[in-house]
Amino acid sequence: MGHFNLAKIGHFYFATLGHYHFALTQKLISAAKETICGILFGWIIKQILPEEKVDPIINAVLKPKSIAVIGASTNPDKIGYKVVENLKECGYQGAVYPINPDAEEIVGYKCYASVKDVPYVVDAAVITVPAKIVRQVVQESGEKGVKGLSIISSGFSEVGDHALEEEIVRIAHEYGMRIIGPNIIGVLSNSDKMNASFYNNLPYEGKAALISQSGALLIAMAAATYTRRVGFDKMISIGNQADLDFADLISYLNEDENTSCLTLYIEGIKDGPKFMEAARNCTKPIIALKAGTSAHGAAAAASHTGSLAGSAKVYEAAFEQAGVAQAEDLNDMFDTTLALSLQPTMKGDNLLIVTNGGGVGVLATDAAEKYGLPLKFAPEDVQEELKKHMPSFGSAKNPVDITGGAGLAGYYEGVKYSYAHPWVDGMAVLYCETSVTDPQEIAEAIYNAIHESGASDKPIAVSFIGGERCEKAKEWLIEHDIPTYDAPDLAVKALSSLRKQDELLKTAHNGMYKPTNIDKEKALQIIAAARAKGRDALTEVEAKHVFKAYGLPVTSTDLAKTEEDAIRMANEIGFPIVMKIVSPDILHKSDAGAVKVGIKNEQGVRDAYKLIMENSLNYKADAEIDGVAIQEMAPWATEVIVGSVNDATFGPTLMFGLGGIFVEVMKDVTFKVAPIDEATALDMQSEIKSSKILEGARGEEPRDQKALADVLAHYSYMVYDLRDEIAESDANPVIVYEEGEGVAVVDARIILTKK
Amino acid sequence: MGHFNLAKIGHFYFATLGHYHFALTQKLISAAKETICGILFGWIIKQILPEEKVDPIINAVLKPKSIAVIGASTNPDKIGYKVVENLKECGYQGAVYPINPDAEEIVGYKCYASVKDVPYVVDAAVITVPAKIVRQVVQESGEKGVKGLSIISSGFSEVGDHALEEEIVRIAHEYGMRIIGPNIIGVLSNSDKMNASFYNNLPYEGKAALISQSGALLIAMAAATYTRRVGFDKMISIGNQADLDFADLISYLNEDENTSCLTLYIEGIKDGPKFMEAARNCTKPIIALKAGTSAHGAAAAASHTGSLAGSAKVYEAAFEQAGVAQAEDLNDMFDTTLALSLQPTMKGDNLLIVTNGGGVGVLATDAAEKYGLPLKFAPEDVQEELKKHMPSFGSAKNPVDITGGAGLAGYYEGVKYSYAHPWVDGMAVLYCETSVTDPQEIAEAIYNAIHESGASDKPIAVSFIGGERCEKAKEWLIEHDIPTYDAPDLAVKALSSLRKQDELLKTAHNGMYKPTNIDKEKALQIIAAARAKGRDALTEVEAKHVFKAYGLPVTSTDLAKTEEDAIRMANEIGFPIVMKIVSPDILHKSDAGAVKVGIKNEQGVRDAYKLIMENSLNYKADAEIDGVAIQEMAPWATEVIVGSVNDATFGPTLMFGLGGIFVEVMKDVTFKVAPIDEATALDMQSEIKSSKILEGARGEEPRDQKALADVLAHYSYMVYDLRDEIAESDANPVIVYEEGEGVAVVDARIILTKK
Repeated sequence: MGHFNLAKIGHFYFATLGHYHFALTQKLISAAKETICGILFGWIIKQILPEEKVDPIINAVLKPKSIAVIGASTNPDKIGYKVVENLKECGYQGAVYPINPDAEEIVGYKCYASVKDVPYVVDAAVITVPAKIVRQVVQESGEKGVKGLSIISSGFSEVGDHALEEEIVRIAHEYGMRIIGPNIIGVLSNSDKMNASFYNNLPYEGKAALISQSGALLIAMAAATYTRRVGFDKMISIGNQADLDFADLISYLNEDENTSCLTLYIEGIKDGPKFMEAARNCTKPIIALKAGTSAHGAAAAASHTGSLAGSAKVYEAAFEQAGVAQAEDLNDMFDTTLALSLQPTMKGDNLLIVTNGGGVGVLATDAAEKYGLPLKFAPEDVQEELKKHMPSFGSAKNPVDITGGAGLAGYYEGVKYSYAHPWVDGMAVLYCETSVTDPQEIAEAIYNAIHESGASDKPIAVSFIGGERCEKAKEWLIEHDIPTYDAPDLAVKALSSLRKQDELLKTAHNGMYKPTNIDKEKALQIIAAARAKGRDALTEVEAKHVFKAYGLPVTSTDLAKTEEDAIRMANEIGFPIVMKIVSPDILHKSDAGAVKVGIKNEQGVRDAYKLIMENSLNYKADAEIDGVAIQEMAPWATEVIVGSVNDATFGPTLMFGLGGIFVEVMKDVTFKVAPIDEATALDMQSEIKSSKILEGARGEEPRDQKALADVLAHYSYMVYDLRDEIAESDANPVIVYEEGEGVAVVDARIILTKK
Repeated sequence: MGHFNLAKIGHFYFATLGHYHFALTQKLISAAKETICGILFGWIIKQILPEEKVDPIINAVLKPKSIAVIGASTNPDKIGYKVVENLKECGYQGAVYPINPDAEEIVGYKCYASVKDVPYVVDAAVITVPAKIVRQVVQESGEKGVKGLSIISSGFSEVGDHALEEEIVRIAHEYGMRIIGPNIIGVLSNSDKMNASFYNNLPYEGKAALISQSGALLIAMAAATYTRRVGFDKMISIGNQADLDFADLISYLNEDENTSCLTLYIEGIKDGPKFMEAARNCTKPIIALKAGTSAHGAAAAASHTGSLAGSAKVYEAAFEQAGVAQAEDLNDMFDTTLALSLQPTMKGDNLLIVTNGGGVGVLATDAAEKYGLPLKFAPEDVQEELKKHMPSFGSAKNPVDITGGAGLAGYYEGVKYSYAHPWVDGMAVLYCETSVTDPQEIAEAIYNAIHESGASDKPIAVSFIGGERCEKAKEWLIEHDIPTYDAPDLAVKALSSLRKQDELLKTAHNGMYKPTNIDKEKALQIIAAARAKGRDALTEVEAKHVFKAYGLPVTSTDLAKTEEDAIRMANEIGFPIVMKIVSPDILHKSDAGAVKVGIKNEQGVRDAYKLIMENSLNYKADAEIDGVAIQEMAPWATEVIVGSVNDATFGPTLMFGLGGIFVEVMKDVTFKVAPIDEATALDMQSEIKSSKILEGARGEEPRDQKALADVLAHYSYMVYDLRDEIAESDANPVIVYEEGEGVAVVDARIILTKK
C-alpha cells in the first residue's frame, strides 16, 4: 500500500538533521525513535497480519501518532484553540503541532507557520481554518506528506458548495490522503486518550464506537454517556462524508480491538451497496438510528445536511439484510448499545426472568411477548431447585418470583443455578427497591452468582427500579459489564436485541445471489430495440421476453401481426387463450375494449382479432399498433404482485405483496434490496401480514411458496443485473398455485432508465 | 350521610371526662377542640358544598385526622413499628395511637391495649396484625367508631382465603367503615405529610396521585420519583380491593385539590362498568399501566394477585371509551404522568419544534409523525420573526433550527414569540448540550420566555440532551412545572399525550346510549321459549326475531312448517329467496345439503322444500326439525361481521370487522364495551385497518357507514340490555350497501347464558 514510504521518511529525517543539527532536543530523539520503531513495528506487523486488515491511511486519521492542528488559535473561544487544548487536557500521548504563523506556542506546544514547516512526521492534520483557506492547507498537507485529514471547518456541501468539497477531496487523493469531514466536531478515542475535537471531554469509557452524522448530537451524546453510563471507546463525527464514509469506518472499526459494537447515527447514506457490503462483512454488532424516517423529517434532514434521505422502508430493508439493528429512538440506541457492547448474543429462545416483585415480573413477561421472546414455563428440575431458595408463596414457574422477602441468598442461589442450567438461553434479573434489602449487595450477589455459576457465553440483563441507591448499584453493574436498566421491559428488550443480533449475524453474511441460465444478451437486445424506436417503456410482450430471459415463468405470449399468425400461435399455446392489443399508444387496454379473455377456438380468435383491431382504432385513430398478443390463459388462484424500483440510495429494490386490496388498500407490502436468495425470498413471504393466505388459510391448500421464492429470487437478480436499463418494473398479477403446481407471471411491465 | 354522629361523639366526650377528670392534659384540650371544630367545620362545609362531593368515610381513610396503628410494635424490624415511625418521621400532624397491649409507648406515642381503649376520636385504623387476628380488630374498630381501615396485613384472597376477606368486609360495613386493602403497603400523602405505610419515605413532591395494585412496585416507584423527578402528592396501595376499589378512589381523587392527574398500575379490575363510570366522570387526566396484557403475563398476574386478567383488547377499548390514557410501559407511565400532571391539554394539532441541533430536530419530527402530530410548516409571519433571532444558516420552517450558535437570546426570543402566536397549539423545545451554552441559563430563558409571552393554556415540553449540567437544568425546569425529558422524541410524545387527553376528555363523557322503539318483552319471550325447550342457543329464525325486536334490519325470514306455508311466505317476501333447514340438531346446514339459494318461483320452492327435508333426514335421521326458513335473498355487497361476548370484567362487548379474510386471516377487528352511541360506532369503522374499503376504495362508491353505525349502536344496546340472557352472539354476514342504500343482516346467532 506504500504506507511506510522509506524514501520519504528518510528525506524528512535528513531534513531534520540539517535544521536542528546543533539543537537535537530530547523530543526529537523520542520522535525519531518513534519513527524508527514505527517503521520496524509496521514492517513486523505486515509480516504477521494478513494484508489490508486495517487500512493504514484511515488508521493514520483515527489513531495518529502525531497531529498538526492547522488553524490553531491563541484565543480560548476559538475552535482552533479548543482542539489543541483538548488534545493536551485529555492526555494525548502523540506529538501535537499547532499551525499558526502568528503564535509561538499554544498550551505549551510549539507553533509552526505552516504544516510544511513541521520538522517531524505528521500523521494527521486537524483543519479548523475557514472554508476558503481549506483548499490551500490541504495542498500544503499533501506536500508535507500528511496521511489523513480531519476537516472540522464547515461551509462546503452542507451550504451548497459541492465544487469546493470535491476539489479538496481531489487534492487529498492526489497525495494519497483520506479525509474525515468536512463539517465535523472531530474524533474522540478513550483508548488513545485522544480528543481531537472541539468538545472538551472524552466520553464515559466503554467498548462501543459511535459514528455520528450530526455534530451537535455527538457532543450531547458524549456528555450524556456520563449520566446514562453507556460507555464508548470512540466517537467519530463523520460530517459531509466527502471522502471517508460510514462503510469505510465500519470496515476499519471491525478490526479495532477496542471496539465491541458500532453505533451509527445516520441521516443519509451516500453509497447504499457499499454500506451494505461493509456491514455484511462486519462481525461486530451494528446499531443504527436513522433520522428522517417521516416525510417531513426527511425534508428537514435534507435541508440541514444536504443528504438524500431515501425511502425509510428501503433503509429498513437494507439494515435488516445487512445485519444492522435499527434503533427506534435515541433512548433505544443507548439501551441497545449498552447490551450489545457488553454481552454475548442470545443463542436460543429460552428466556428466564427472576424478580423480587410480582408486578414487575408481569410487566417483563408482557414485554417478552411484545419483543418476540414469549416466556415458557421453566423445566421441572429448575423449578424444584429454585423453590428451595424462596418463600412458599413465591413462584418458580417463570417469571420466577422469589418475592420481596427473598433477599441476598435468594438472588444469589436463584441466579447462579438458573444461569448455569442448559435450558436457559438468557436471563433477565429484576429488582424492586425494598426497605429490607441493599441494592448494592443485590448487585454484587447477581455478579457473583453469574461468575461462580461456571457458565458463560449467554447474556444477562438487569433492571433495578428505585432511587439513588439503585442508581449507584446500576452503575456498579454496568462497570462490571452487566447491562442494567431502570425498567423491567428494557432488560427484556435488551435480551431481545441480543437474540435478534444472533439471527442477524447468521443471516446477514449470505453471499451474492446469482441464478444460472440467464440470457442477459437477449434481454439487452430487446431493450436496445425498444430504445432504438425512441421508447422508454417496453410493451407487455417485450417485457415478458425479458422476464423469460431471466428464467421467470411467464404465461406463453406471442405477438401476432395477422389473423393467421394469431390462429397458428393460439394452436401452439393451446386453448383457452387471452388476446390483447399491443401498442405503445394504448396503455389502458381494457378501457379501449382491446382485451378478450377465454377464447376457446379458431373462430373465436378470428372474431376477437377483428374486434380488437377495430376497437383500438376507434379508441385512438393514429395509434401505432405492433399487433395482438396471443396469451396462454392461466387458471386463477392466489394473486400476488412483484415489482421493483431503483432506490436513490440502495439501487434496485424488490417489492412484494398479495394482489388486489392487500397492496392497494391494506398497504401490506415488503421490500428487499436486490438481489436476494431464495431463503430471503421465503422471509419476504412470511413478513407480510397476509402471509397466512400463502400458507393455506381457511382450510385451503398451501400455495407453492418454494416456486414463488424462486420467482422472487430470479426477479431480484434481473432488476439488479439490468439496473442500468430498468428504472421500474412489475409483474402484476403473478398467480400462485397449490404446493408443487408452480407460479405463472401473467402480466409484465418495464419502464426503462433515462439515457 | 350520618358522618358526624353527634350522639356517639358526645358519648366519647363524656367517657373521656370520666376517665381523665383530674388530668386534663393539653393534648386532650387540643383533641377536644379539634373534635368540636371538626363538627362545626363539617357542618359549615355541608351547608356550602353540594352533598357527596367527597365521600366522608373515604376521606377518613385517606385524610384522617387521627390514626390508630393496630399491631404497633416495639421491634424496629416489624411493619407495626415502621408505620408508627414513618408517621412521626414524615411529619404527620394528626394524632397517632399505637395499639399494643404490651408496650407503654412507641417512638414517643402513648400505646393502648386495644383501639377501644383510645379515649379520643379515631378516624382511621392502620392494621398490621397477622391475618387470623384481623377479624377481631376490625370488630373492635367498628365498636370504637373508627371510620376507615387500611389493612396492611396479608393472607387473604391473594393466598386463596376469600371467606376471611369477605367476612372482614361484612363486619366493616356493619359499622359503616370502609377498607383499603388488605395486602397493602399503606397510604402516603405529601400534602398531609402522612406516611401511613411501611415504606420509609414520602415520594418526591408533585401533583399526581398513584394508585398501585402492586405493593413492591409502589415502593420502588416512590424511591424512583427522586431520581426521575416525577412528583406525586399521593401514593395509595390498593391491594386486594376487598372493599374500596379503583373506581372509589378515582371518584375521591377527582375532588382532591392536591391531585392534578391520576396514575394507575392495574393488574385486574373487579367491576368493569363501575370503573368506566368513575373514569368517565373524572375531569382529571387518568393514565393506566395495565400489566398482564400478554397471555403468559396474564397467567402470572393471576397467580400472584388472584385477580382476573380479562382480555387485553377489551381493557384497551374500555380505557379508550372511559377517557383513560394507557401507558405502554413503566417509563411511559412516568413520562406521561409528568406531562399530564404539569401541563394543560393541547387544543389543536399545530406543533412547533424549536431546536439548537438539526439532528435532534429531525428525530423529533419523525416522532411527531409516529405519535400522530405530523409537523406542518410554520406560517410566514412566524418564520419571518424567527429568522431575526438566528444565524442565516438556521431554519425557521418547523422544526425551527436556531442552530448551535444561537445561544440564550435565540431561545428566549424564539420561544417567547412562537409560544404567544395563535397558530401554535403546543411547543417542543429541544436543547443539545454545547461547549458555548450553559444548560441552566437556557432553562431559565425558556421559562422566562413562556411566562413573559402573555400566552397560557397551551402546553410545552422540553428535551435536554447532555450530561450532569443538563440533569440539573432538567430538574429546575420540572420544579417550575415544565416537563423535561432526556430525548427529543419523549418531549414530542408528551405533547401527543396532551393532545390525546384533550380528545379523550371531550369524547369520554358521552351519556349512556339508548335507542327508542325497542321491544324487550318480545325478545325475552323468544328466549324464554327456547330455554323452556332446554336449549342454550337460539335458532337462526329466533335470533333474527330478537335482532328485529332491537331494531336491526334483518333480511325477512319466516319459518315454514309445510310446503304451502313456504309458498305463501315466499310470495310475501318476494323472489328470489333462500331456503334453509331450521333444526337445533343440524348446525352445519350447508354440509347437510340443507341450504338452497336463488330460488326464483313457486316450483322452485316446492322442489327445494322436498330436497332440504330429504337431505336433512339423510344427514341425521332423528333430527328435531322446526321447519324450513324462508328468507329474502339480499344482493351481495361489502360483507362485515358484528358480534358480542360477555367479558368477565367489562360485560357485554361488541366486536366489529370486515368479513372473510379480514377477520379470519388478518385479525383486523375492533372492540368496544357496550352500549355505544352512533359516533363511537363510526369510530369503530375507522379504527379497523381495512376501513378504506368502507370509505370507497379502488374507485368504488362509499358504503352506507351511517346505516352501519346505526346497526352497531342498536346491536350494542341489545347485547347490553339482554346481558343476563345473551352470552355471545354474532351477525355474520352483515351486507353493507352504497351510501343511502342501507344494511342487511343476513345471518344471526345467539348463544344463551347458563342459568
